[in-house]
Amino acid sequence: MRLANRIEHLGTERAFAVSQAAREWAARGNRVYPLHLGDINLPTPANIVAAQQRAIAEGKTGYCAPAGIPELRAALAEDVGARRGLQYQPENVAVQPGGKPVITKFIQALINPGDEVLYPAPGFPIYESQIDYFGAVAKPYRFVETPRGFAIDLDFLSAQITPRTRALIFNNQQNPLAAEATDAELERLAELAIRHDLWVLADEAYFETRYSGESRSIVSLPGMQPRSVILYTFSKKFAMTGWRLGAAIAPARVSEIFAQLNVNDESCTAHFAQWAGVEAVRGDQAGARAICAQLRLCRDALFAAVADTPGLRAAKPESAFYLYVNVADAMDKRGFTDVNDFAAAALRETGVAFCTRRHFGRLLAGEAEHYARFAYSGISVDDIRDGMSRLRAWLDGADGPH
Amino acid sequence: MRLANRIEHLGTERAFAVSQAAREWAARGNRVYPLHLGDINLPTPANIVAAQQRAIAEGKTGYCAPAGIPELRAALAEDVGARRGLQYQPENVAVQPGGKPVITKFIQALINPGDEVLYPAPGFPIYESQIDYFGAVAKPYRFVETPRGFAIDLDFLSAQITPRTRALIFNNQQNPLAAEATDAELERLAELAIRHDLWVLADEAYFETRYSGESRSIVSLPGMQPRSVILYTFSKKFAMTGWRLGAAIAPARVSEIFAQLNVNDESCTAHFAQWAGVEAVRGDQAGARAICAQLRLCRDALFAAVADTPGLRAAKPESAFYLYVNVADAMDKRGFTDVNDFAAAALRETGVAFCTRRHFGRLLAGEAEHYARFAYSGISVDDIRDGMSRLRAWLDGADGPH
Repeated sequence: MRLANRIEHLGTERAFAVSQAAREWAARGNRVYPLHLGDINLPTPANIVAAQQRAIAEGKTGYCAPAGIPELRAALAEDVGARRGLQYQPENVAVQPGGKPVITKFIQALINPGDEVLYPAPGFPIYESQIDYFGAVAKPYRFVETPRGFAIDLDFLSAQITPRTRALIFNNQQNPLAAEATDAELERLAELAIRHDLWVLADEAYFETRYSGESRSIVSLPGMQPRSVILYTFSKKFAMTGWRLGAAIAPARVSEIFAQLNVNDESCTAHFAQWAGVEAVRGDQAGARAICAQLRLCRDALFAAVADTPGLRAAKPESAFYLYVNVADAMDKRGFTDVNDFAAAALRETGVAFCTRRHFGRLLAGEAEHYARFAYSGISVDDIRDGMSRLRAWLDGADGPH
Repeated sequence: MRLANRIEHLGTERAFAVSQAAREWAARGNRVYPLHLGDINLPTPANIVAAQQRAIAEGKTGYCAPAGIPELRAALAEDVGARRGLQYQPENVAVQPGGKPVITKFIQALINPGDEVLYPAPGFPIYESQIDYFGAVAKPYRFVETPRGFAIDLDFLSAQITPRTRALIFNNQQNPLAAEATDAELERLAELAIRHDLWVLADEAYFETRYSGESRSIVSLPGMQPRSVILYTFSKKFAMTGWRLGAAIAPARVSEIFAQLNVNDESCTAHFAQWAGVEAVRGDQAGARAICAQLRLCRDALFAAVADTPGLRAAKPESAFYLYVNVADAMDKRGFTDVNDFAAAALRETGVAFCTRRHFGRLLAGEAEHYARFAYSGISVDDIRDGMSRLRAWLDGADGPH
């Protein structure tokens, strides 16, 4: 069977393998504590569901414009702009079936083969996959662990820039690290982007999933808006991961190209779902607040449990829904040298499922991989407590190699 | 603004320009008769809508597997197979947000730059766009007008095949021609595909939209299943164009690659919509029958009107929802030499909007372009009669150049 050569360069999300292992373990009658999922186990707010249903009843079941219905483009231009202190028009908005399509379309629209693209490592694995797939050169930048969490190694990032560097992918409120840049770091990143004339993909999927403070967008900094594409998604804020509804907010010409890619790839995003999106953005926000409040309870429970478990170490994140846990001591305690072996044993011995550093892109040379991502969005507070107490007991019980 | 070079090779659907012109004409207070739309102005059957609503109430709002929920993959394997006399398994099915994504994924998964791909001209314009975009060589094949409609010029097609030819795109129940291959023609096409070891994209979007007879799939012929990808869509049969729900039915390894492209491009198709799809395939078929019955009334009204209009000529189609009309005499009558000028004047003088040859891919050398596509799926029988009687009056009133 002759496949196209380009498929050799197509990556994937290896985290699906963790879901598979967790499903298999559960199917054998075992209790599983799902801390591996970046999904949300809460219902979509009722007003949003009702708006979709109304749209269907009104006959919004046919095609709509490739860039999205004007009402949703206007709602997003206003809302995304206002939260960042920016002015956007409907022409800047290209509605997408999720936030993820913005990644491939950013690469397709703006990056040539051989161009270098800076992206976070660890980071959402599709950045690297799409850079590779379209023949660009993946240039990872790294983070340093601090007592407050993780910070971009800006000197390292800066040293990666060459005359071939064309774009920076930046995911503040980061998955998997839950890292956030300080104002000074944002300014330095913006300065680099402007000095080297880079396109910026601002993946702001978790911009409004936060527990204290305010999110700040790199796109708000002077000179950044004309070179930036914001990845917006309804998935996290409104518990709509399975709806597949998102958007690119970009300079108008870029948004036009995104829409032309829509014409080719999927015609348009589901018509009635876009009316649900209008309600999500413009309607009652009680549902979004309740989702965030619940995620905060989960964060508190998970952070307390991790802090209480010898061998695990993590900072307390104020945004997104992940704890990126240093498991070096825990691995030592149980005699593991391979982080995926450690994760497999934890599932088998305790039912706790989690992803590791290996699920978030290639390792940098010499990078330590003794890290695990615990996601607290797809599990109840009680199950977090139960699962983590089993994990603690397993680690406490260790008196040598397993 | 530096865009990626590949965007220069990205095509589009030019028919959006017709929609735009029609909208502008209507906005100026004019009556428009929409015979340009390949959309359906009928509601989605209520049992399908109800199934989606149930799925949402049951919490099917989170992510699902990139290849689709097992229940929909099983339902499609069974249904698509049974209607073609073939055996498919769930592993052969990759659910997609519409039928259209199957086109880009077919090219991406199977075609290298420089490979030649045979495709119909006139035909759905995204074939040509995606062949060009991914650096393959677009090799159009042509049709001949017969008293029974249009037939593939098989000698011409055969002469286009070279050692670089890698795939054949074949759209039986054709858009825009409403052409269908005879058994003998299908056999010759299959023989060519096998002899030259071609992949086949069988775009069967209209397979079940027919008014008499039976659709036959090229994939049913001996030796074809292992080399064929079926484009399946819910759009036409169930009046679900705006839902964005379809699938690729393919050899298991190809379906796996389609799913890996899903992981990269859109994660998955809307979760709850897939449950609506299960109901569409397995549930009460009264809705689909009613849609087809209504389309037949529209076809009859439009065909009668065209037959009754001096200057227009078309065969009566038994499938899809298009009449491909020879407008050479009508253009002569009104003194037009350019088919798009003729269409623009028809809109201005009568309100009747339609697409022309130019909206369906590049012209072959020497190809006549005095053809118009009249779509009868997005308009009522009464409006078909009204609009066509205005068009007839305009053509009848002609006594020289406009």
